[in-house]
Formats: sequence, C-alpha cells, structure tokens
Amino acid sequence: MKPGFLVFAICVLSSVATAQTNPVAEAARRWRQQHERPILEEFVSLLAIPNVSSDRANIQRNAERLVQMMQARGIQTRLLSVADANPVVFGQMTTPGATRTIIFYAHYDGQPLDPKEWASPPFTPTLRDKRLEQGGQIVPLPSGSTRINPEWRLYARGAADDKVPIMAILSALDAIRDAGMKTRSNVKFVFEGEEEAGSVNFEKILAANRELVAGDVWLGCDGPMHQTRQQSLTFGDRGIAGVDLTVYGPLNELHSGHYGNWAPNPAMMLAKLLASMKDDGGRILIDHFYDDVEPLSNMERRAIADAPDIGPILMRDFGLGSTENSPKTLAELITLPSLNIRGMASSRIGAQASNVIPTTATASIDMRLVKGMDPSKTINQFVEHVQKQGYFVVDAEPSADVRKAHPKVARVVRRRGGEIPWRVSMDLPALQEVIRIVENARGKVIKIPNSGGTGPDVALRVLGIPPIGVPIANHDDNQHSFNENVRLQNLWDGIELMAALLTM
Amino acid sequence: MKPGFLVFAICVLSSVATAQTNPVAEAARRWRQQHERPILEEFVSLLAIPNVSSDRANIQRNAERLVQMMQARGIQTRLLSVADANPVVFGQMTTPGATRTIIFYAHYDGQPLDPKEWASPPFTPTLRDKRLEQGGQIVPLPSGSTRINPEWRLYARGAADDKVPIMAILSALDAIRDAGMKTRSNVKFVFEGEEEAGSVNFEKILAANRELVAGDVWLGCDGPMHQTRQQSLTFGDRGIAGVDLTVYGPLNELHSGHYGNWAPNPAMMLAKLLASMKDDGGRILIDHFYDDVEPLSNMERRAIADAPDIGPILMRDFGLGSTENSPKTLAELITLPSLNIRGMASSRIGAQASNVIPTTATASIDMRLVKGMDPSKTINQFVEHVQKQGYFVVDAEPSADVRKAHPKVARVVRRRGGEIPWRVSMDLPALQEVIRIVENARGKVIKIPNSGGTGPDVALRVLGIPPIGVPIANHDDNQHSFNENVRLQNLWDGIELMAALLTM
Repeated sequence: MKPGFLVFAICVLSSVATAQTNPVAEAARRWRQQHERPILEEFVSLLAIPNVSSDRANIQRNAERLVQMMQARGIQTRLLSVADANPVVFGQMTTPGATRTIIFYAHYDGQPLDPKEWASPPFTPTLRDKRLEQGGQIVPLPSGSTRINPEWRLYARGAADDKVPIMAILSALDAIRDAGMKTRSNVKFVFEGEEEAGSVNFEKILAANRELVAGDVWLGCDGPMHQTRQQSLTFGDRGIAGVDLTVYGPLNELHSGHYGNWAPNPAMMLAKLLASMKDDGGRILIDHFYDDVEPLSNMERRAIADAPDIGPILMRDFGLGSTENSPKTLAELITLPSLNIRGMASSRIGAQASNVIPTTATASIDMRLVKGMDPSKTINQFVEHVQKQGYFVVDAEPSADVRKAHPKVARVVRRRGGEIPWRVSMDLPALQEVIRIVENARGKVIKIPNSGGTGPDVALRVLGIPPIGVPIANHDDNQHSFNENVRLQNLWDGIELMAALLTM
Repeated sequence: MKPGFLVFAICVLSSVATAQTNPVAEAARRWRQQHERPILEEFVSLLAIPNVSSDRANIQRNAERLVQMMQARGIQTRLLSVADANPVVFGQMTTPGATRTIIFYAHYDGQPLDPKEWASPPFTPTLRDKRLEQGGQIVPLPSGSTRINPEWRLYARGAADDKVPIMAILSALDAIRDAGMKTRSNVKFVFEGEEEAGSVNFEKILAANRELVAGDVWLGCDGPMHQTRQQSLTFGDRGIAGVDLTVYGPLNELHSGHYGNWAPNPAMMLAKLLASMKDDGGRILIDHFYDDVEPLSNMERRAIADAPDIGPILMRDFGLGSTENSPKTLAELITLPSLNIRGMASSRIGAQASNVIPTTATASIDMRLVKGMDPSKTINQFVEHVQKQGYFVVDAEPSADVRKAHPKVARVVRRRGGEIPWRVSMDLPALQEVIRIVENARGKVIKIPNSGGTGPDVALRVLGIPPIGVPIANHDDNQHSFNENVRLQNLWDGIELMAALLTM
C-alpha cells in the first residue's frame, strides 16, 4: 500500500472520528473554541514547573499548583503521601444520588532529561508551527481571539506525558459547567507524582487510602493514542524490568597498540554478550524468557486483527528500512515481551576518543513484560543467561581481586521500579460502558489488549478496580526523549472526550 | 609462577641493568644527581604548555619553547613545516671530522583528553609519591638539594608520551659537556608536533627537507620501555587504521514500550555487528584480514622467545582474569594485527538514561597492522565485512531516504592518520652498533621485532635511514589515557642512555 494512500486514510479516519453528535462533546468543543488562549496559558504555566521525578522541590511545586487549579474548580483536594514519596494529588467531586464512582488517573512527573539535547529549554514551553523534524518554527501564542492552528505543537517535558490529560480534564469541567451540564457519577482524581520513577511508592499510598480512592472504573489517562490518530482504549500495560549491565576489562585504560589483542576489550565483550541475547530476527534467546507469557483470548486476537496496521506509515515516519520480528505487526508485538538496549557506553567516541582499551562497557537495558511474567523472575533469567556466557556475575562494583579471579566479570544492577504487567478482560460490564461512551463521543475506537508502555496495575491489584487506558496524546510526541511535545488538536479532542467521561 | 617471584625478578633485572661501568653514563648519573631539581623545573615548565595536537596556538608555544631550550644549549635550531602543519622542531650539532650522523626523533604533541577525567589538571604538572592507582599523594618538589625519590611520578599530558626523551636528551647534553666529553658523530634532532594526530604532514615535511634531515641512524625516542623495566629496543612499529562505525535505528528516539521489539535497536545491531568481527578467543574474523601479514624471521622469533613473559605480572597489575588469543604471549601478539574498540556509545546510560530506543550507535575502532599490511586495504576489508553482514554502507550521514531504503545502514568513516606498519632487520650494522652502545650503558636489552604502538616509518621509507626504537618511559604511564605520568627513575636512566648515544 502506498504511504500517500495511508496519509489520506488517516485524515478520513480523523474526520469520521470527530463527526459525532454527542451533545456533551459538542458543548465542550464550542466552549474550547472560545477559550483556546486561556486554556493554553494555564497549560503553559503548569508545564513551566520542572517535573523530573527526582527533583523533589519542583515536584512539590507541581503538586501545589495542581491543588490550586483543582480547588479553583471546586474540587475537594488533598495530597496523599508516604515517607520519601512524591505526593499523589487527590481530588473528588461528590454527585448527589450517584451510584457509580469514576476515577481519573494521570501523572504529573516526567522522565529525566539532558537539556543540551533539547531545541528549546524543556521547561520553557514553546509553541511550534509543526514538528521540529518537519522544520517546525517557533510561533508566539496568538493574541486575543486569533485562531490557533490545531496542528501546532507545544514543546515541553510533560506536555504529552502526562500533563495533557490533566489539562483536558480540568478544561472539560469548565466546559460542562459553562453549558449547565452536570456529573452523574461521583468523580475522583488521582494524579501521581513518580510514575516515571517506576511508581515506587504508589501502591503504598493507595493501600494507605483504600476507602478514599475506592471506585468502580479507573480511567488511566496516560500514554499516546494510536498512530492513526483514531481514538484508542487499552486494557492492560506491559510491565517492565530494568538492569544495568557492566563488563570489565583492565583496571586502567591501556594503550591499544601495546596491549591490543592481548588485553580483553570490555566493549567487545559487551557486544558479544548483548548479541547472545537476541537472534537476528529479534527473538529473545534468554532461556525460559517466554515461558510465562499468557496467551491472548479470542476477543483480544480479534481486536488485534481489527486494528489498522500502521507499520508501513511508521516505518516511513521513523526512517526505518526494516523491523524486528517481521512479519508480526506492531499491534501483535506489543502483546509480547521485549528486550531493549536503552543506552550503551564505553570510553569515548568522536573527538574525545583516544587509542585505548576501555576499562568497562555498560549497557542500560529495559525488558517489557506481558501478562503472566514477573519482573524479578525475568531478571533472574537475565542473570542466568549472563552466567551461561561464562561470566561471574556481581551486583556491586567488583574489586580488583574479583576481576583477577575470574576470566569474565559482569555486574548486573537491578534498577528500582520494576512493574508487573497486567491485562483485563474487555467484556467486563464497566469497561463495556466506557467503550460505549467513548465511541459515542469520538467515533469507532481501536481496542488494544495491552499498551506497549508501562502503567501501574495497582488499581486492579490493590483496589480491585478494573482499569482502562484512555490515551489522548499524539503518538509522535517524543515521549521519554528530548523535544517532547503535544499536538494542540489532541488537547482539543481530549477535552471533548473527558467531558463525555466526566458526565457518564 | 607466583607473582611475588616475578616482582623480585624485576628488581634483580633492574639492578643488573644499571650496574654498568660505562664512563659516559656514569658521568651523566653524577651530573644528574647534582641537578635533579633544575632538571625537573625545566621539565615542568615544558609540560605546563598544553600540547594536544589540534590546539594550534599552544603547539606553536611548545615549538618556540623547544627552540629556546635547544638554542640555550648551542644547538642550531629551526622550525620545519608545510601548510596547515604543526612544525617539526629541527636541530643539529656538527662535529668536526665526524663520519656518522645520528638523528634523535621524539614528538612534543600529545593525545586528546577530557580534563574532567584527570585527578589533577593535565597541564598543571603534578608530582605524586607513587602511582595514583596505588594511592599516590601529591608531593611538592623538594627544595634545595633534598633527595628526590626516584619512584615518584610526574603527572601531565605528554610527561611520558613523548616529552620525557626530549628532556633526557637535553639534560644528557648538559651532562656530557659538564664532564668535558664530546660528541663523535654529527647529531640531529627531529621533534615532531603532530604524531598523535597521525603524523599527517610528517612525510611532506621530511621530503621537503631531505638533505637537512639526512643521516645514518634514526633513534626513535618514543613509547614505553618493557614492563620489566629492563631496557628494550624496537625495530619496527605496528601500523594503524582507524574507523568510526555508526549504525542507524529510528530517526528519533522512540518510546521503548510502544515500539520495543518492533523498531530495530541500533545498539543491538552494533553489538551483533561488532560480535561478528572476532571469535570468542580474540581472532579477527574479517575475511583476508591476516593474508598479508609478513612472517617473522628466525632472528625475530628468537628475540620473542628470549623476551621475558611478563603476562602474569601484567594480568595482576591490570586486574585481568583472562587474556585474548591465549596461549600466545604478549611479545608474540604485538607482532600480529589487532582490532580494538576504543569507544562505544548509544543514547545515554546511568542517571541520564531513559526508556528509549536509540537513534544511532557508534563504535570507534582502531586496527593495528603489522608489516605487510596496508591501512587502506584493511579498511576496505572492514567495509566488505560490514556489507557481508547485510549493511548498506555509506561514508557520510545517510539521509532519511537512504535509511528507509535499506534494511540495515552503516556509516564507516575512515579516520585520518592511518600509518603503514614497518619492521627492519635487527642485523643491519648500524643497528648492531646501537645495540652495542645501549647494552654497554644499560645492560642486556630486550629486542622487540616491532612495538605494539605506532610510529612513523618515514625515516625508512622517505629518507632510507634505518630506524630503531629507543624507549625510556615507564610502561605503566597511562599513555594515551587520563593521568599520564612518568616515573622519575625512567627520566634519570634516560639521561644516562641518551648521554651514551650522543657520544657514540
């Protein structure tokens, strides 16, 4: 299929999706069209507060700002926390006579970053007239009632992941109130502050506030929408297990002339070790890695078959001439586990490089898990694999004596923040109702058995509330990388969607 | 053999080596013992001038300082250069009635560096009471005639590689004059300024000054001595060919959850590509890589067999539990070619890492060549190997279209400064005479067919002068890396050796 045709197809799908006649969504659209500038001003002011999870002082400022924004809308708000945790911003609106409680989840913290990689400072929210990769130029926020092009992008850490749903929810509240509409359910808000640090305290915080956060449906407002821009819903998340793997060469860098092909080179050792972990097609070769993968149900298989295959378009967008695990589609592949090298380093490259044998080589690895798999067990399998390649494995920096005592030494550090994969059945009545509301507001949805990304399963595991993923960010948002951005139309559509969900 | 025994063996060899009765060397020692402080002061002042090859302004300051130092000793001195080159500092002393011309070669430029990696600033020469790795502490230069411990180290870029021979030669001149001794040959000095940038202009400079630099023996005063600290002489150098290898993933970093095990990971691609280049023992698997290696002569084989096997001691010093290409010894292995990863990088590791699929992965590689091999041909074989692994190979940054058009794309950039390997026969009469003089001054020498490192072969190829390597720096000098240092005893011994060679 020609890429040109698919671009056309996206536009059609996009129009179809927004050609609804849902009165709440329509009211939200009218309100939004009259308030684009103040919405963006409030959003920019929220994004200007740095939100890297480890930056405690600024995380606190974010939480306090959210409290202000929510209280200004009459939401009863408080911070929930435990020792050494970033606070959860919790809010609730009680609806007289309501028999249902809906919980909107999002997170306000963001991934670590290196400002040098960003085209504009990550916490100086910057509008551009298109994607940077397509030559996007900085544009000012138009004054007064000048029309804002919905294809413009707002660049900032957290713009897409995951402050945009918070902005959409609060704007939707303004819109439904302006239209004289009311909530029919009790509504709660759970805005987490350390999702990007692996939600290390989230379970503790929820467990300590079970009654406060109890409810019937958990709307996980996080992650990007389907690449077609058609609304998607997800019924699970991949889990994650992270390791940092370091292998060791000489104690000091050695002259590559005097010792090259005698002293072992840790970069080459690492290359061979990593190469042993996947076959050329992309299948993971760690023993028992796939053993616990729970098979998909028939409904899940059908959902995957129904999802548009966006692979060819993405290959063009991403500049790829091949994919891993071909001919499986992306939709199917995210229901399988992965092993990804997220970074790798040994000595120096470029102008800083010199003719040495490095002392160490390190790869930072994340493994995405699917339902049935366990993060700890997976890391144990990883360690066993390294051992089977002849390595003596340690978990702390090895002494010179340890390095001398073993032909090959590797250090495997388990990163904090592993998460358990989860997937709920699409035919639970509460979830079927959400699907109906979303389709009514946004047209036919793509049902994804589990997101490729990671999200907390604690709603289900700790609280027993079935969660459903309701993403609104654009797929091409550079999430987790530099130059993260949100497309304005996604915020606008998100406001309509959230208005419909707030009044369900 | 127990390490303890070998340490003892080194001490014995060291004592034997310095127990000579050569009158010139003895005169040089007496003079040095009376002048240690001024020698070090002059050396420190030379080392304080930054000397990274690419730093043109400071390279010029180095050259001018050397001219001053040489003219102060009555050496006729001038700078030799061609367009865009760092100058060669040339000097000569004519001896009435001499029938032989000896050329002392050294270089005053140093390897690139990252100051952050150094324990003390690389151009603030710093004395330490032992190696940093053994807990060496900063000590002041003793005042007056206080004895200076010869095991102290002087830390600075260029301290060992390769300003120490220059300091030894000039100090030796002072010493022999003070003793009323005279040169018997004509003596010339060729101090190069861009050896660490691959001697890219050296051949041109020599060719443009053929008559000026003509002579009978070329003493290459560069590189470290044998690890036993016993005096060694080398009769060749490995050549070098450098490439930077980059493989390509998606155009932008992608979220490893949403695209992991679908989008190809360039770090994994690079790992597999590098792993394909060597077998587990360390033998290079690039087709025809070894085809042109010229076999060793019987004399060369004997020299290797006679050289002490320092492997076990080095393994202990370097914290190694294994070596490549076992059971071949280091002495033999440096007469074979190598392939070394000098640096590797993809996205970020440590606290800066995030859950992405990187866009590129790069390895910086140096291949050391031995006599018979050609740098260009070797790089061609390297490129063919990459192609045989399924890569489309480019030499410039590939466009998005090129990346889309090929399943796997690699960029191979040939670094400037490849050098041709060379080796001369040990039994040339001029070289036999140098061996005799050195053994007379410093005791039994270790004869090394070729150094593991790289040195210009132009003396032989352009000028037809047989070269011999006369190293004086300590082997554990962190040459080419951070915290480069010279052991003072090596400078002291070097003065005695140079005094003997200056008067041959």
